[in-house]
Amino acid sequence: MSTSSVPGPSHSGPVAERSAVFADRHIGPDAGGLDTLLRVLGQPDLDALEKAAVPAAVRNDRPLELPEAASEAATLTELRAIAARNRPAVSMIGLGYHDTITPGVIQRNVLESPAWYTAYTPYQPEISQGRLEALLNFQTAVTDLTGLDIANASMLDEGTAAAEAMTLIKRTARSKSSRFVVDADTLPQTLAVLRTRAEPVGIELVVADLSNGLESLPVGDFFGLLLSYPGASGAVRDHRQVIAAAHEREAKVVVATDLLALTLLTPPGEVGADVAVGSAQRFGVPLGFGGPHAGFIAVRSELQRQLPGRLVGVSKDSHGTTAFRLALQTREQHIRREKATSNICTAQVLLAVMASMYAVYHGPDGLKRIAERVRKHALWLASTLQHGGIAVEHELFFDTVRAAVPGRAREVVAAARERGIHLWADGDHVQISISEATTGEHLAAVVESFGLQAGFAAYAPLMPQWAERTSEYLTHPVFHAHRSETSMLRYLRRLSDSDLALDRTMIPLGSCTMKLNATTEMAAVTWPEFAGLHPFAPIEDAAGYLELIDQLSSWLCEVTGYAAVSLQPNAGSQGELAGLLAIRGYHRSRGDEGRTVCLIPASAHGTNAASAVMAGMSVVVVKTATTGDIDMADLRAKVEQHADRLAAIMITYPSTHGVFEETVTELSDLVHAAGGQVYVDGANLNALVGVGRPGVFGGDVSHLNLHKTFCIPHGGGGPGVGPVAVAAHLAPFLPNHPMVAQAGPETGIGAIAAAPFGSASILPISWAYIRMMGPDGLRRATLTAIASANYIARRLQEHYPVLYTGAGGYVAHECILDLRPITAATGVTVDDVAKRLADYGFHAPTMSFPVAGTLMVEPTESEDVAEIDRFIDAMIAIKGEIDRVAAGEWDVADSPLRGAPHTAAELAADWERPYSRTEAVFPAGVSPAHKYFPPVGRIDGAYGDRNLMCSCPSPEAYA
Amino acid sequence: MSTSSVPGPSHSGPVAERSAVFADRHIGPDAGGLDTLLRVLGQPDLDALEKAAVPAAVRNDRPLELPEAASEAATLTELRAIAARNRPAVSMIGLGYHDTITPGVIQRNVLESPAWYTAYTPYQPEISQGRLEALLNFQTAVTDLTGLDIANASMLDEGTAAAEAMTLIKRTARSKSSRFVVDADTLPQTLAVLRTRAEPVGIELVVADLSNGLESLPVGDFFGLLLSYPGASGAVRDHRQVIAAAHEREAKVVVATDLLALTLLTPPGEVGADVAVGSAQRFGVPLGFGGPHAGFIAVRSELQRQLPGRLVGVSKDSHGTTAFRLALQTREQHIRREKATSNICTAQVLLAVMASMYAVYHGPDGLKRIAERVRKHALWLASTLQHGGIAVEHELFFDTVRAAVPGRAREVVAAARERGIHLWADGDHVQISISEATTGEHLAAVVESFGLQAGFAAYAPLMPQWAERTSEYLTHPVFHAHRSETSMLRYLRRLSDSDLALDRTMIPLGSCTMKLNATTEMAAVTWPEFAGLHPFAPIEDAAGYLELIDQLSSWLCEVTGYAAVSLQPNAGSQGELAGLLAIRGYHRSRGDEGRTVCLIPASAHGTNAASAVMAGMSVVVVKTATTGDIDMADLRAKVEQHADRLAAIMITYPSTHGVFEETVTELSDLVHAAGGQVYVDGANLNALVGVGRPGVFGGDVSHLNLHKTFCIPHGGGGPGVGPVAVAAHLAPFLPNHPMVAQAGPETGIGAIAAAPFGSASILPISWAYIRMMGPDGLRRATLTAIASANYIARRLQEHYPVLYTGAGGYVAHECILDLRPITAATGVTVDDVAKRLADYGFHAPTMSFPVAGTLMVEPTESEDVAEIDRFIDAMIAIKGEIDRVAAGEWDVADSPLRGAPHTAAELAADWERPYSRTEAVFPAGVSPAHKYFPPVGRIDGAYGDRNLMCSCPSPEAYA
Repeated sequence: MSTSSVPGPSHSGPVAERSAVFADRHIGPDAGGLDTLLRVLGQPDLDALEKAAVPAAVRNDRPLELPEAASEAATLTELRAIAARNRPAVSMIGLGYHDTITPGVIQRNVLESPAWYTAYTPYQPEISQGRLEALLNFQTAVTDLTGLDIANASMLDEGTAAAEAMTLIKRTARSKSSRFVVDADTLPQTLAVLRTRAEPVGIELVVADLSNGLESLPVGDFFGLLLSYPGASGAVRDHRQVIAAAHEREAKVVVATDLLALTLLTPPGEVGADVAVGSAQRFGVPLGFGGPHAGFIAVRSELQRQLPGRLVGVSKDSHGTTAFRLALQTREQHIRREKATSNICTAQVLLAVMASMYAVYHGPDGLKRIAERVRKHALWLASTLQHGGIAVEHELFFDTVRAAVPGRAREVVAAARERGIHLWADGDHVQISISEATTGEHLAAVVESFGLQAGFAAYAPLMPQWAERTSEYLTHPVFHAHRSETSMLRYLRRLSDSDLALDRTMIPLGSCTMKLNATTEMAAVTWPEFAGLHPFAPIEDAAGYLELIDQLSSWLCEVTGYAAVSLQPNAGSQGELAGLLAIRGYHRSRGDEGRTVCLIPASAHGTNAASAVMAGMSVVVVKTATTGDIDMADLRAKVEQHADRLAAIMITYPSTHGVFEETVTELSDLVHAAGGQVYVDGANLNALVGVGRPGVFGGDVSHLNLHKTFCIPHGGGGPGVGPVAVAAHLAPFLPNHPMVAQAGPETGIGAIAAAPFGSASILPISWAYIRMMGPDGLRRATLTAIASANYIARRLQEHYPVLYTGAGGYVAHECILDLRPITAATGVTVDDVAKRLADYGFHAPTMSFPVAGTLMVEPTESEDVAEIDRFIDAMIAIKGEIDRVAAGEWDVADSPLRGAPHTAAELAADWERPYSRTEAVFPAGVSPAHKYFPPVGRIDGAYGDRNLMCSCPSPEAYA
Repeated sequence: MSTSSVPGPSHSGPVAERSAVFADRHIGPDAGGLDTLLRVLGQPDLDALEKAAVPAAVRNDRPLELPEAASEAATLTELRAIAARNRPAVSMIGLGYHDTITPGVIQRNVLESPAWYTAYTPYQPEISQGRLEALLNFQTAVTDLTGLDIANASMLDEGTAAAEAMTLIKRTARSKSSRFVVDADTLPQTLAVLRTRAEPVGIELVVADLSNGLESLPVGDFFGLLLSYPGASGAVRDHRQVIAAAHEREAKVVVATDLLALTLLTPPGEVGADVAVGSAQRFGVPLGFGGPHAGFIAVRSELQRQLPGRLVGVSKDSHGTTAFRLALQTREQHIRREKATSNICTAQVLLAVMASMYAVYHGPDGLKRIAERVRKHALWLASTLQHGGIAVEHELFFDTVRAAVPGRAREVVAAARERGIHLWADGDHVQISISEATTGEHLAAVVESFGLQAGFAAYAPLMPQWAERTSEYLTHPVFHAHRSETSMLRYLRRLSDSDLALDRTMIPLGSCTMKLNATTEMAAVTWPEFAGLHPFAPIEDAAGYLELIDQLSSWLCEVTGYAAVSLQPNAGSQGELAGLLAIRGYHRSRGDEGRTVCLIPASAHGTNAASAVMAGMSVVVVKTATTGDIDMADLRAKVEQHADRLAAIMITYPSTHGVFEETVTELSDLVHAAGGQVYVDGANLNALVGVGRPGVFGGDVSHLNLHKTFCIPHGGGGPGVGPVAVAAHLAPFLPNHPMVAQAGPETGIGAIAAAPFGSASILPISWAYIRMMGPDGLRRATLTAIASANYIARRLQEHYPVLYTGAGGYVAHECILDLRPITAATGVTVDDVAKRLADYGFHAPTMSFPVAGTLMVEPTESEDVAEIDRFIDAMIAIKGEIDRVAAGEWDVADSPLRGAPHTAAELAADWERPYSRTEAVFPAGVSPAHKYFPPVGRIDGAYGDRNLMCSCPSPEAYA
């Protein structure tokens, strides 16, 4: 028996908390697993690997100064304390954000279900039919309700949807004017985003009070017009004459609208709109202090090929079965590059799925009932206020009552706040917006806040004939079949069972960093204190959010080595744009208006170029050397050639080739010397956290992807958060917001997103990740990710050549497998290998990016060695199949590679193939007892593009 | 345009809340669906159906007086207000209940996952392999940690586990003594349950202070001995001599123990125990004010066939593949009936799964680390107290420090409570129990509560050699494979994907009422205010619970027509026992000690008879008439014959034959006239709520099944709540509890469960159900369930004869399909049809209960007509297959019926059968895209019983 002595109590108690180290749960390989990896790499430990793989100039000079790791339990306790500082009230502020009742079955089985939230963007449609169907429901709901022909799979928010509509129209309107007219009665945040987006691309924004209709329309040409319907003030106006007039001037018309209102109102498509935009938030998506929510955009069919973002369409598979996939992918920015006019490459899939399921759950009758109740509540309130002598401004409105209370608007709002209700004061007016969640008690409290007593009130359910919707909507059977919770639950389960997400398999997507989205990180998202707050709530009622945002911002600065960060951008693409606009603002503030050239390496992600164009820059491409690195000679030449006009270079580090380039500091020095700024795309930050800091090794600005490196789940293709982090000299040029001073510097570039803090409600995820990992855990994660990628590269090297490596033959956190020799020799394509992986139960790696004919593999730190080996074994087995094709044993067209993926239906049918059923569906390593069968065979994308159909097919289509 | 007038605000606002009627979501058939049902039944509406199907004497005289239905949102708001009245503190009370940290991945993906919680008991093993594997992990963990040979799949709680151990030993000990000795240092609630259970069956309980070991052992014979290890006081004592002495006297020994302590301490099996019992609560299952938690029992192999409850064992399927199923089913009470000595027919599956996954997640090393930290914290605390001059009672302890503070125990406890910590005062002692969740801050606060200051303290990690565990545990690979959250998540998903639960298909189990478990009902279960409270917390800190329990109790009284209810019983079986003990107590209070005969109809559920025996009664069976009803002539004869000794009759209403018997009032009058009491088993209450009240139409006592009628999910075979409701004259004989006066009447029968309010944390589910349905919704649900059952009966009648119907040809809420003529004619058995239904994607109906050779179908109100029709179509299609066997087209042994269920593996293998692959797996109505494949073929149960193996098989077993 021995006697030992321990220190007295500390936070972690007298005994170390080794049993509660979150990093051990987040990081897949345990000690033994790590040994396996390092042994193959010939490195004694992660420190040695770091020295061998990461250039010295990049490596951190000191450990990260972040709080030490807290346990999961302690983190939740801290987070609950922060949450308690928020005071969500009954939200009747409106202005594009409304209280909503998320059906429990949707909250639990979509928003809180790993099967949905850990899924990736449905680029592999055969294993994504569930969420594609859900998105098709969303598109159908939007087209039906707006009365337009085609809608996409969601936009980042209403503000960016409006901005995208503006540029879409710019591309297509016959008018050559550069003027875009905006209804003054438009949501202020939409107006702000339009301003941010218009000026750099030379669009002149003209705000016009159109409340008197035609007579207020500005004289002269304009290419487009945005009308609000209902308006920000709540007014529902008859826009038909104005729209006709705009069309006469060869302009096109966007209508910003509200899906719930459209269950009662004549839809935009029937009053002449060419485009409709808005937010689907109130379809069951919590307020969340501003996001994430699904914006929407719908257009007439002649504009369909101009739609930005992602579009789900109906096609057929190899058996002729109806199947879904992303349509018209050639529209996407990554094809267009410098000609792009949109950089949107993400949707808000998880939120669009929720909204679509809200429509499925309620159906047209249910939605209409909700809308009618909202409208009647609003009418009752207006009538009651008028009865009490308070003037109500508009004759026709849907959910928002605008009351004139000269000199006492703030007093009324304060009185309501005391009663637990948030209203909106606008000068001498108070706006009260009714939602699905509004009760009679809330209304009574509102009336009291005006100093009146509620009582019986007569109201006129005013609805002029032109405004009354007569057309049907949501007639598809899916909106009628799932009225019981049981049926809804099973529908959600069936859809998610169709898909392969991170909860069933590794998703080894290069550049996408599909790591663990830990439950503890996700927990707070649905807490009422975070979920229930309006973005324009009194800022003192959001103290918890501000604290969390401050902490997270400072931690991200420490991780990246920058001085300031804005969390407003809703996606990496928006972070890029914000970062480039900051550079632009900086140059202009110094009188350097001429600095508009942006150097972009050939291997860059397509968004880079698109963002540069949107920031008013011209793109100059820098070549790639045969090593895969940036061609430094070409860079020197380009810098010299454009020195006076050089605005910036955009690089990705480590590179999109998955390599730590040695030249990054030299490159930065070159660009800086020429007066340019260095933009380091943070897409690959998962290879750097705790190891190197872009703000220290050469960058002036980076955007991060919290949905990659910092554990926000991909949600099937959104949400995302793309913070932009900048050095001190760029800090004055970060985004800000017209409604919330705390959102950014006064001197900032304006709003890049509709909400002041973007997708605020998911920031607790990244906060919790950093809090639980601590500085050591973060660094260990990074190095483990590097070790795993190199392990895969080494083990697969003899089967598939690894295209690029850095010094010492190491890759960074991902590796590119070159299939081009195989394709040349055998005809087996990357597509074949990708689809065949589905037969092995895997999601495919990234296909043909950044190099056509290759697969890019990124295991992340979260996969354990067993799963990594399972993947490697599958890839080697597939190589064995390729060898049989090469040997002439199988014709490629008749091989399991081309036949992939194989469905259960095929298995039961006649079988006349040169390979067996077992070889088809139960190749080595696949357990028949736990087999995932894709619901459809390989999908013919081209067929769907030729026969474009982007709403729910009739049930007969499946026959 | 018209003008209308509406009343001013009320709770539901100026506009009716039709869009938020929960009953419309709970009840499957919508208005159109209901029309379909009623049309087939030839009834104009549900009122008419009620009159036609339910005997007038049974029907309610008035509508239920319950609060009107609240919306889901309003209900959650109310529930949050109730929750806020609970004040959970850091719990250091111990006494069998400990704070624990539920791993987030387990909370979200088991406790909050419909795939797990909506599952039924794994009677159909082919579609239950996932939870069977999880339970096998549980059994393995319990056997490993206790050092015994075999453990069952969990017990209702530690108290009943101890009671079952006592009676198990009574059956098997060689000693013929009726004395059972219990260590005085045993949990008071365990002692209380033992008392309740011992006396009626003639066991004499002798409580002995065994702290001095052998010398305190009572003289004379005893058949069994229960020792606590560690004891209730925290003491860890060397019981080896006492055990040896007991064995010498031909007694057997039970050790009540703690799984976490056993990671460090020599296990009971190694110190000579024959049986070990305890609770797995601290393996990640929240306190929940006392339950539900999984109790456990483990025995030496020679006792294995005496194990009560459910036991999972390893067997093989029709292809020779390793597969799991419930073992030794012939042990179960429903076979033994009046010879039974246990009425347990439920486990705590969901909680056992959680506990098993906690062991999988932490593995032996992790569990040991947690235990060592607990032990060191306890040692540090003891040392610090001693250093401050406070005497600590025991030399050897694990987690609990017992400090002597003469005259100021209450003061110390109060001081700790002010610091947010609950301690336990016992006379002049204070007990402080350390848990996984204890932090240094907690310990410092405890020390302060004693008036001391925390500081450095030396402690001796005392562990005498005999106590130090040397044997290995949890060596199976499953306890080593899932250390990362990612891997754990996928393991949970894979297991749940193996199973068919309510989230994928109707589970038409007669007598089991597998209805919707709505998300809103489930929401509160994991709220910290409900989950985090210790059952012996100061009662004023449980004000929210008391309020909820009061309301729920009064609602259940109103629904049943009784005067009082106890929510303590953890299962229907325990409710039965409590009800019979109340009857016994009543008779004895009147000097009627001789009234011990209990009449039970032949068709009764097996638990009825078992419970009667356990309540000290003798069972007399009443015959069934050919109509399926109770044979009234036989009843009259039996009543007459036993009039003086008549204690009670136990009937089920509607009957287990699914029929509203007309004679129920006549029967009650007969029994009452003879001085007996009428026990109405509430298993079928789903056919009565809002329609008839057993307390009014003849019953004196009923138990209910909140896990059937009131929406608590079955959780794969537990939890359950079996409240017992009684007429006023029986109210003084309800259960009570030694630690909590509010739990029942002083005159009560004692504790029937370990926790004062049983499975308190799941009571919000039933509360929310009643709150959201309101009186009208409840009645509509009942009548819809009756309509659906009759619809099925009518539509299937021509294919499978419906065995019994009541007046007018109506069944109640379920129907029995008679397969005996089919079996006789074709050899196709109920088993064949049940397994074949799995190929059609269905869970089978109840098999061979209450009549061998039949299937009993209960659709509940929650299935919509589409799903009911899908089931009917499948049954008709199966009848078509049977007809082909009958026609000689297929030999039954070679038919898809006998081949069922078919696996994916079979599909890929060679196929030499008279039916096609498509006929096998994709019969009419089964979509290949969404096909569920059972992971194994038909399981050979007998093989497993002959080769009994009830812990995890080695990985080679699968080869």
